[in-house]
Amino acid sequence: MIAEINTQGLKATNPRTGQVLDGVFESNSIQEMNDVVCKAEEAFHIYKKASSKQKADLLESVASEIMKLGDELLDRASAETGLPIARITAERGRTVNQLNLFASLVREGSWKEVSIDTSIPDREPIPKPDLRKLLIPIGPVAVFTASNFPLAFSTAGGDTASALAAGNPVIVKGHNSHLGTHQLVVGAIKKAVWKCDLPEGVFGSLLGADFTLGQELVKHPAIKAVGFTGSFSGGKALYDIAVRRKEPIPVYAEMSSINPTVLLPNALSGNSASLAKSLSDSITMGVGQFCTNPGLLIGLDEPGFDRFAEQLKENIQQSCGDTMLNNGIHVSYNENSTSALSREGVELLGQGKALNDLLAGTPVVAITSGENFVSNPTLCEEVFGPYSLLVKCKDKEQLKEVLSRIAGQLTISFMLSEPEAEEYGDLIELAESKTGRIIFNGVPTGVEVCHSMVHGGPFPSTTDSRTTSVGTDAIKRFARPVCYQDSPERLLPDELKNENPLKIMRKINGEFTREIIG
Amino acid sequence: MIAEINTQGLKATNPRTGQVLDGVFESNSIQEMNDVVCKAEEAFHIYKKASSKQKADLLESVASEIMKLGDELLDRASAETGLPIARITAERGRTVNQLNLFASLVREGSWKEVSIDTSIPDREPIPKPDLRKLLIPIGPVAVFTASNFPLAFSTAGGDTASALAAGNPVIVKGHNSHLGTHQLVVGAIKKAVWKCDLPEGVFGSLLGADFTLGQELVKHPAIKAVGFTGSFSGGKALYDIAVRRKEPIPVYAEMSSINPTVLLPNALSGNSASLAKSLSDSITMGVGQFCTNPGLLIGLDEPGFDRFAEQLKENIQQSCGDTMLNNGIHVSYNENSTSALSREGVELLGQGKALNDLLAGTPVVAITSGENFVSNPTLCEEVFGPYSLLVKCKDKEQLKEVLSRIAGQLTISFMLSEPEAEEYGDLIELAESKTGRIIFNGVPTGVEVCHSMVHGGPFPSTTDSRTTSVGTDAIKRFARPVCYQDSPERLLPDELKNENPLKIMRKINGEFTREIIG
Repeated sequence: MIAEINTQGLKATNPRTGQVLDGVFESNSIQEMNDVVCKAEEAFHIYKKASSKQKADLLESVASEIMKLGDELLDRASAETGLPIARITAERGRTVNQLNLFASLVREGSWKEVSIDTSIPDREPIPKPDLRKLLIPIGPVAVFTASNFPLAFSTAGGDTASALAAGNPVIVKGHNSHLGTHQLVVGAIKKAVWKCDLPEGVFGSLLGADFTLGQELVKHPAIKAVGFTGSFSGGKALYDIAVRRKEPIPVYAEMSSINPTVLLPNALSGNSASLAKSLSDSITMGVGQFCTNPGLLIGLDEPGFDRFAEQLKENIQQSCGDTMLNNGIHVSYNENSTSALSREGVELLGQGKALNDLLAGTPVVAITSGENFVSNPTLCEEVFGPYSLLVKCKDKEQLKEVLSRIAGQLTISFMLSEPEAEEYGDLIELAESKTGRIIFNGVPTGVEVCHSMVHGGPFPSTTDSRTTSVGTDAIKRFARPVCYQDSPERLLPDELKNENPLKIMRKINGEFTREIIG
Repeated sequence: MIAEINTQGLKATNPRTGQVLDGVFESNSIQEMNDVVCKAEEAFHIYKKASSKQKADLLESVASEIMKLGDELLDRASAETGLPIARITAERGRTVNQLNLFASLVREGSWKEVSIDTSIPDREPIPKPDLRKLLIPIGPVAVFTASNFPLAFSTAGGDTASALAAGNPVIVKGHNSHLGTHQLVVGAIKKAVWKCDLPEGVFGSLLGADFTLGQELVKHPAIKAVGFTGSFSGGKALYDIAVRRKEPIPVYAEMSSINPTVLLPNALSGNSASLAKSLSDSITMGVGQFCTNPGLLIGLDEPGFDRFAEQLKENIQQSCGDTMLNNGIHVSYNENSTSALSREGVELLGQGKALNDLLAGTPVVAITSGENFVSNPTLCEEVFGPYSLLVKCKDKEQLKEVLSRIAGQLTISFMLSEPEAEEYGDLIELAESKTGRIIFNGVPTGVEVCHSMVHGGPFPSTTDSRTTSVGTDAIKRFARPVCYQDSPERLLPDELKNENPLKIMRKINGEFTREIIG
């Protein structure tokens, strides 16, 4: 695990103890970055031609090598992030499942969206050509890892898995918060690449002491797309670089979201205690360090509201702060929550128990009126950590006004009874225009990895609302369509051949079918 | 057809005669643009909820109203563009077919890419929620019309048809080259909107004397995407504005392409005469004013090459120039072709007969060596019009070198015999990385409107290689996914309901099916 000792190197810290962890990690020079990218570009010519089976084997092999790292990985990731072993173990499960899910997607093959229009040679006035389309990989992808998911959104996380699955080499910029975890996973991936007899350049790893290396990576002409999970400022900075390149490239940055949760009267009056419990758990889980943390709760001034607020307050007061991921996040959380509480018309509703710990993030729930929320746009800003703002609206109109002030979100939740679904239909419609996922009677935390997930949404929650960073459709971010016109059969990729040797679902003359063309 | 007389207004000119045509067209103020966009934003709330049938009816109604314009439309479009009536008639057919194709796509409904993952309430450690995803419209779309297709890529062209089909209001910035045509088609669309009982704001039209109005349109916060067909400078300027907005939006600009055509030895030796005929026809068709005009022909120094060059020369010399679309295009063509011919190592191969006409574009074919091409990057630049450069490469390596110097293209064609397909596989693979469409033994002109078409490609041929501007997949440019988690059945859009009332193809737990969920 330990890089060559170098006094100029990077070191990891245990946020819980403040202790500097073993290992010194060398940051890479621009020249080294360039070499890694050039190797990826060369490897692309081989890897893109690898069979679907080979790509699936690679993904499964990465999953298996990660499991083989055993406790060393769990211990290191826990030490570097302050996240408990149980959470890291669950996250490893998710990471491995994700890799295997993409392997099965690639093995099956229908994700390439094959469409074939057969020729009509005797059509008048001009013959109709034979046209066959599929998705192809785009080239080396740069992936920036997340502080809050050292495994599932990091080195072998969703971006890496989906970009490799699509047939692209990946270059991961490791996070300075979990250097040792990164290096362990890099080792696992490299071993898998080697075992699968693929060129080394299929996977590259980079570390940098500051932002320069990542910025230069995004500028490199051989990089064809960027995946990022993190802050708005980080994601937007990479986007701004990418769109100013001579050849602009897509940036899939999953950034900030306050995940509004709307509490309708029946839900509040019916089961306010269990609602307060679910939401306080959701707010404090993982020290609130989730992109889907419920940072805004909006309700109506109805009898159930005050009882709910009281129960939420009690839950939060009984909750305990815990160690945050790193010093930067901890400092920001304290500054931002303090500043949010100091705003006009905002009151502290309840605060958790302070942990006697250097980097403890103490849960905070604040309260304000709908009127105040509407007149103060800064109340929409994300406070990353276990913070939430409860907004009491005087009527439905004001609730709608509050919702209309909110920018693009990853999720918007509604707590409601069936009859309210109809009564508040206009609110749900408004929510739909502002988010990638609408949740009913559930908290926003917990993102299922499956085919139908949308973990994305309008700006500023992401830089590209047309996609998702979780679930199988994430693969489409790293592919583009190409059409073969009147190609000799032997030159066609297997997906496009008459015989449909891969037996995939195809659109033939506009109809979905697995039939052969004969 | 005639706008209110206004001495400040815009007037159309017949490029063939230089005569100013009837009609004065008022350009819009920024305030008027703002009003049109606000009306579109309001209309979006109604139109997005219209049924698929209503949207399909609108598209078909637009098609039928365009046909009802009869000869008036054909005559005006021909007068404003210099394109013959036969060409305009064919283009009208394509426009109407395109509208009807999108109507049938929308009526069928499977384009929304529905995916459903059903719940597993007793899953351990946490229940699996019910997740249902589909594509939804995004909001008002700005469409910039093309000079070279007054109907099929203009007011009711592919961008408008696909954006309306997806459920978005459209605002078209009319082209100053065909103002009367624009106004006639605007009338047809507005009539269709009215007949279909949809809000006026579903379609808006704008005219501007200079670029300012269009630039301000792209900056308007209510605009959610941009469609454009035209020059690199025009498309890139709009892209640069859109990515610098507070909320960046996608720009689908279809810009420049020289559509390289590779002539392999067997194809040259086998049927050089018919090849020379097809290519000279393709170069001169429509005075070369197609985005798929073959601007670069690349061959090997083999016995067939010189004979082919001779035949191409003869064909071009026998060809006649014709009137170009407008003065600006004519001036640019003369400047750019003259400048291309003056470059070192470039020789005139043949020139067509000059037409005694103010705006005649005379066909020109030049010739150079592979060596010279490789050392002079300006030879890759597009000369919009009936111009093509024939490159004679000394061997396969040089041919590959030439191809490797070329930027992103809409099309790359290969003229070859079956055995050559294998021998030159590496060239075809290289071509694949640079284009949206690979054509075998066919010319690049002629873009089929169907499900499998890709009229798109890597930058700078477009600003977004993930899409196509022709064919049914063009609809996906103007939609984004949204996921409903644990939604009450009654709140779900029809596409996501258990019963599958629209009988569309859906992915359920990862499997394609039209089955109900029971």
